[in-house]
Amino acid sequence: MITLASDFGTPYPAAMKGVLLRRTDAKLVDVGHNFPRQDVRAAAFWLREVLPYFPPAIHLVVIDPGVGTDRNAIVCRAGEHVLVGPDNGVLVPAARRLAGDAALEYAVVDEQLLESPTPAGTPPASSARTLSDTDDQTAADGPASATFHGRDVFAPAAGEIHAAGQGALETLEWLAPLEGNPVGLELPEPTLENNYATGEILVVDDFGNAITNVPGEFLAGRDRIVANGDRVPVCETFAAVPAGEALATVGSHGYVELDVNRGRGDEAFGLEAGDRVRLDANDDPDS
Amino acid sequence: MITLASDFGTPYPAAMKGVLLRRTDAKLVDVGHNFPRQDVRAAAFWLREVLPYFPPAIHLVVIDPGVGTDRNAIVCRAGEHVLVGPDNGVLVPAARRLAGDAALEYAVVDEQLLESPTPAGTPPASSARTLSDTDDQTAADGPASATFHGRDVFAPAAGEIHAAGQGALETLEWLAPLEGNPVGLELPEPTLENNYATGEILVVDDFGNAITNVPGEFLAGRDRIVANGDRVPVCETFAAVPAGEALATVGSHGYVELDVNRGRGDEAFGLEAGDRVRLDANDDPDS
Amino acid sequence: MITLASDFGTPYPAAMKGVLLRRTDAKLVDVGHNFPRQDVRAAAFWLREVLPYFPPAIHLVVIDPGVGTDRNAIVCRAGEHVLVGPDNGVLVPAARRLAGDAALEYAVVDEQLLESPTPAGTPPASSARTLSDTDDQTAADGPASATFHGRDVFAPAAGEIHAAGQGALETLEWLAPLEGNPVGLELPEPTLENNYATGEILVVDDFGNAITNVPGEFLAGRDRIVANGDRVPVCETFAAVPAGEALATVGSHGYVELDVNRGRGDEAFGLEAGDRVRLDANDDPDS
Repeated sequence: MITLASDFGTPYPAAMKGVLLRRTDAKLVDVGHNFPRQDVRAAAFWLREVLPYFPPAIHLVVIDPGVGTDRNAIVCRAGEHVLVGPDNGVLVPAARRLAGDAALEYAVVDEQLLESPTPAGTPPASSARTLSDTDDQTAADGPASATFHGRDVFAPAAGEIHAAGQGALETLEWLAPLEGNPVGLELPEPTLENNYATGEILVVDDFGNAITNVPGEFLAGRDRIVANGDRVPVCETFAAVPAGEALATVGSHGYVELDVNRGRGDEAFGLEAGDRVRLDANDDPDS
Repeated sequence: MITLASDFGTPYPAAMKGVLLRRTDAKLVDVGHNFPRQDVRAAAFWLREVLPYFPPAIHLVVIDPGVGTDRNAIVCRAGEHVLVGPDNGVLVPAARRLAGDAALEYAVVDEQLLESPTPAGTPPASSARTLSDTDDQTAADGPASATFHGRDVFAPAAGEIHAAGQGALETLEWLAPLEGNPVGLELPEPTLENNYATGEILVVDDFGNAITNVPGEFLAGRDRIVANGDRVPVCETFAAVPAGEALATVGSHGYVELDVNRGRGDEAFGLEAGDRVRLDANDDPDS
Repeated sequence: MITLASDFGTPYPAAMKGVLLRRTDAKLVDVGHNFPRQDVRAAAFWLREVLPYFPPAIHLVVIDPGVGTDRNAIVCRAGEHVLVGPDNGVLVPAARRLAGDAALEYAVVDEQLLESPTPAGTPPASSARTLSDTDDQTAADGPASATFHGRDVFAPAAGEIHAAGQGALETLEWLAPLEGNPVGLELPEPTLENNYATGEILVVDDFGNAITNVPGEFLAGRDRIVANGDRVPVCETFAAVPAGEALATVGSHGYVELDVNRGRGDEAFGLEAGDRVRLDANDDPDS
């Protein structure tokens, strides 16, 4: 099984699927291709929350604002899972979660040794490498595009790893151990006091729920809180308040969310991803 | 085969797919995850029109504005098909259509007996159950979220049913016969007179076609009608009128649609889902 | 393997998938269902660039503004690939690319002989054929809708071809050789002089990159160009300029693209699909 995640929209992911399916008959599962454009942190959050529900799989992740620069293409073994993507931190939180107690192992893709895809039939009008006059490769060699490594580097790598099966990471000649550490990415941690929490909006989901980085335990035993000045009830379900009214709840990822029943919490609270949020449970008489 | 329908956007459906694929190797087919948000009636319409084209399958349906309340999670056997979703009526019109002459059988999911999914690796920061102090479950038990039953209740149920194969509904211990009747949902019926029809816009599709609940027969033999005051030709195809011009036709679901060739019928007629529409064929000289 | 491409949005493609899966257990892969609405040329471009990355497959293509008119439904053998769709040119550029040196073979679908899909259970309220009083077909016969040939003609055809396997195009009785030529579609060619190129924006992708029809070679050895009056650097990667700044590069399809790093090139250059673009490399001191 190979999962695919990107910020590509339509139809670039299909080119990656074609490349994969030339190399392997794996089941392909879309995690999503509408991740916030070039937002490494948002994708890192979502992947950390979603990928652990999958059975062992190869996860192809292409949120890659540095495409074509000298950032590495990396492969990470995380327990029974393998992740493939750019070395920009996007893989790291998911890999840690997937690995559990196992150590993470990283390898780097040698793009010169990896065979790039050759499309069927006549070659395209030109190749992305034409800018460098010293490059002897012809279009028929399938040189990697400087702007679409999802198709030309990451998908071939994931497909070859799947096709090689057990032991792939030890035997594929275009993989080498990563020297040094991968680029890290830490999701921000909140500051927790007794009746206060100061955190951040990690992401806003498609429902408009503003997901904070404050652990859900903060709401335990509370009936209401003040979030950035707005006093709202603490509820277990959206439907506990009338349609259109705001609430705070513990979302499905275990964090405090600021929501509106049948509406958009981000708009009601005036919050977007990255915004600072202060939760105050001080005036709750039960506290 | 398991089909998936929701109003979740991205990337929540992927978590459901991971949960399913831990339980079974079923082929997964997306019906769509962009159904109008929390609009039970629109989803019920689309499912009734789309699911009957599938071969026998398990249909996982999560349009669930009452998530976390005491509404039941139900399973419905409809002929050779099985539907899994909330007991809010969303399944009912499709189930009736799928069953044909067969009787519908409903069962209710006992969420205490159904094993919730446990994500890989370290547990999330907290669990959605932390609001209730009396709950002894730990995160490692994989307690159901109060806000994401698609992942924690409906997907595990559909996956277990698929994995159990024939006779699943008789043998799975977390299924019990539904006492009483499921929550019903009737799509509105039009009023038909000789040369008049008074109906309602059921849905507007992604092309902007305004789909009424008036049977297509109403247009038989007519050359033009007046729809809410706008006189438009009755055509078999969009392309029968110039680009940008309005028409009435019989849509692919058999109902009168108000459309614009290469444009949006909803905007031209000023109509949206739920609006009342009056069709008048009285001034058609052929009538 | 069957790929699907359409401009249908949600949930019409699911009906096509149901129809396919009643006829064959093929792996289904979405190329995309958000192609620009009824824009045959844009779809033709994307399909030509994406489909050649797939292994041999049947490609179901439904961008069909003339649905229900007398345009033919056609099948094209292109090397090891088969394309199914309307005879409006949308298939042609991809078919030529897929065929390589092989000759293209076209057949036309006899819609009277092809078995239309019959949905499960009770028939829909009416049928799309009710407008023609002389039609003897009943709803139970599954007559083709006049407005949804994707479900009622193209998907059944693709499914039958897949199920019939090798030799399908020679043996299926509802296929006949196409008399004459298919409707053609030529993507526009640019005018190239030494230091000037006059071309057109073929498409704008979901990132906002404005993709021209000028071959990437035009940029070889240049450091900057003037595009419709805007002087921009020529770069190999988006990240070569600061976020928010414009550039010209060779895109992943081999054409000159006008982009903005982490922004939208179409907006920065004021360009949309179909617009004329003039590239001037004359003031580049290296030229």
